[in-house]
Amino acid sequence: MKPLILISNDDGYEAKGINCLIDMVRDYGDVLVCAPEGARSGMACAFSATTSLTLTLRRQEEGVTVWSCNGTPVDCVKLALAELCPRRPDLVIGGINHGDNGSVNTHYSGTMGVTMEGCMKYIPSVAFSLCDHRADADFRPMESYIRKITQQVLIDGLPAGICLNVNFPLLEGSSTYKGVRICRMAKGSWLNEVTKCHHPRGFDYWWMVGHYQNDEPEAEDTDNWALQHGYIAITPTRTDVTAYEAMDLLHDWNLS
Amino acid sequence: MKPLILISNDDGYEAKGINCLIDMVRDYGDVLVCAPEGARSGMACAFSATTSLTLTLRRQEEGVTVWSCNGTPVDCVKLALAELCPRRPDLVIGGINHGDNGSVNTHYSGTMGVTMEGCMKYIPSVAFSLCDHRADADFRPMESYIRKITQQVLIDGLPAGICLNVNFPLLEGSSTYKGVRICRMAKGSWLNEVTKCHHPRGFDYWWMVGHYQNDEPEAEDTDNWALQHGYIAITPTRTDVTAYEAMDLLHDWNLS
Repeated sequence: MKPLILISNDDGYEAKGINCLIDMVRDYGDVLVCAPEGARSGMACAFSATTSLTLTLRRQEEGVTVWSCNGTPVDCVKLALAELCPRRPDLVIGGINHGDNGSVNTHYSGTMGVTMEGCMKYIPSVAFSLCDHRADADFRPMESYIRKITQQVLIDGLPAGICLNVNFPLLEGSSTYKGVRICRMAKGSWLNEVTKCHHPRGFDYWWMVGHYQNDEPEAEDTDNWALQHGYIAITPTRTDVTAYEAMDLLHDWNLS
Repeated sequence: MKPLILISNDDGYEAKGINCLIDMVRDYGDVLVCAPEGARSGMACAFSATTSLTLTLRRQEEGVTVWSCNGTPVDCVKLALAELCPRRPDLVIGGINHGDNGSVNTHYSGTMGVTMEGCMKYIPSVAFSLCDHRADADFRPMESYIRKITQQVLIDGLPAGICLNVNFPLLEGSSTYKGVRICRMAKGSWLNEVTKCHHPRGFDYWWMVGHYQNDEPEAEDTDNWALQHGYIAITPTRTDVTAYEAMDLLHDWNLS
């Protein structure tokens, strides 16, 4: 039987990134897509605890089925696994995201939510993101790498509890990727994150915007450095977020 | 100057848990609360990328100011830091959550979203949760521990990039906590997560429910084990989720 590849994203089922991804990986298995109805950026691992969910079949052809869901990226994965997948997926892919998911964006990203959810279900899971927010971003240069990584994960799997966060730099002009670097998450910060506005009816409201700052720009082993220097950044990412190195310190507090 | 303690949660500013927390820690500093207007369980580290935010002042008295926000728990922290805090907080606290935030719930919890956000802003941050979902849960037995941990973190701080996920078991009858254990996240799974319903107008919809399964019930070093056996579980938690142990494997893939 062909491998089953479950795909979702946080830009919605109509986004260019997810549709390019479908075309890049459909050679390797049956593709089932369950993606949000519209933009769900910044949704992290959120799921819908208090609202109900609906599904809409959007497209069905040989080897590719596309559903949309009114919920979050994680809702999409949970619902697909429970109700839509004809068998257990061999691979969960989030993306291709329109925008950088390196550094702390890992924690906010709905694309990474998809991937973390797959990983928490013990399924090999990968996120692909391109450092280009534009709706018409050019995803073609990523294709050979995405195909290679997809094949590799389908053959080898991934260690339990570990998924991949793969970010591609925006290429300038006719340049090509300098290669692949295996990275750690850079330490970074979002600055000036809120912008205050005044409503004509007399009250204040705020938009979340801001800009990202790499807090360790010289660190060559980070995702931010790789992306800034034209490399594809692969960051292996854990679902076990225990800080084992802090246990001794806490034992010394003698709280019992 | 007194320490400044920033508090938020995912159950909303009116929940019993956050109001008990305010009373437990107000001796130790000025308390600024910015919490969601209503329930935001399961919101993880989500922030509002596409909707605007509003703030409402709910209460102001000596040493305690309470704001509500229409956004997510992480929105609350970001907005409070940018617009409401008179100085940089010395401590961010999420909680007290009505419900267990151990194991994989770490990734879904809005209470942990508060704490991760504080930690990503390099502020010592702690989440407190009680394994009792009821609106009228009894938080009083937690008080001496919460006071001790709050004091300790205000004095010692926490290592950069590490926050605390503190979960309290539900006490039966007149029993007391058996003590504190420093734990790792248990491996666990949510099963039967979606329930299908049929709308009178003829379409299907789904609710996220399900039950949690501890996938390593014998592991005595986990948060799940501690809680199940009457101990308070403190899990030090990292914002750097890089899986360093998987880097060699990925180098062997020779993707460049």
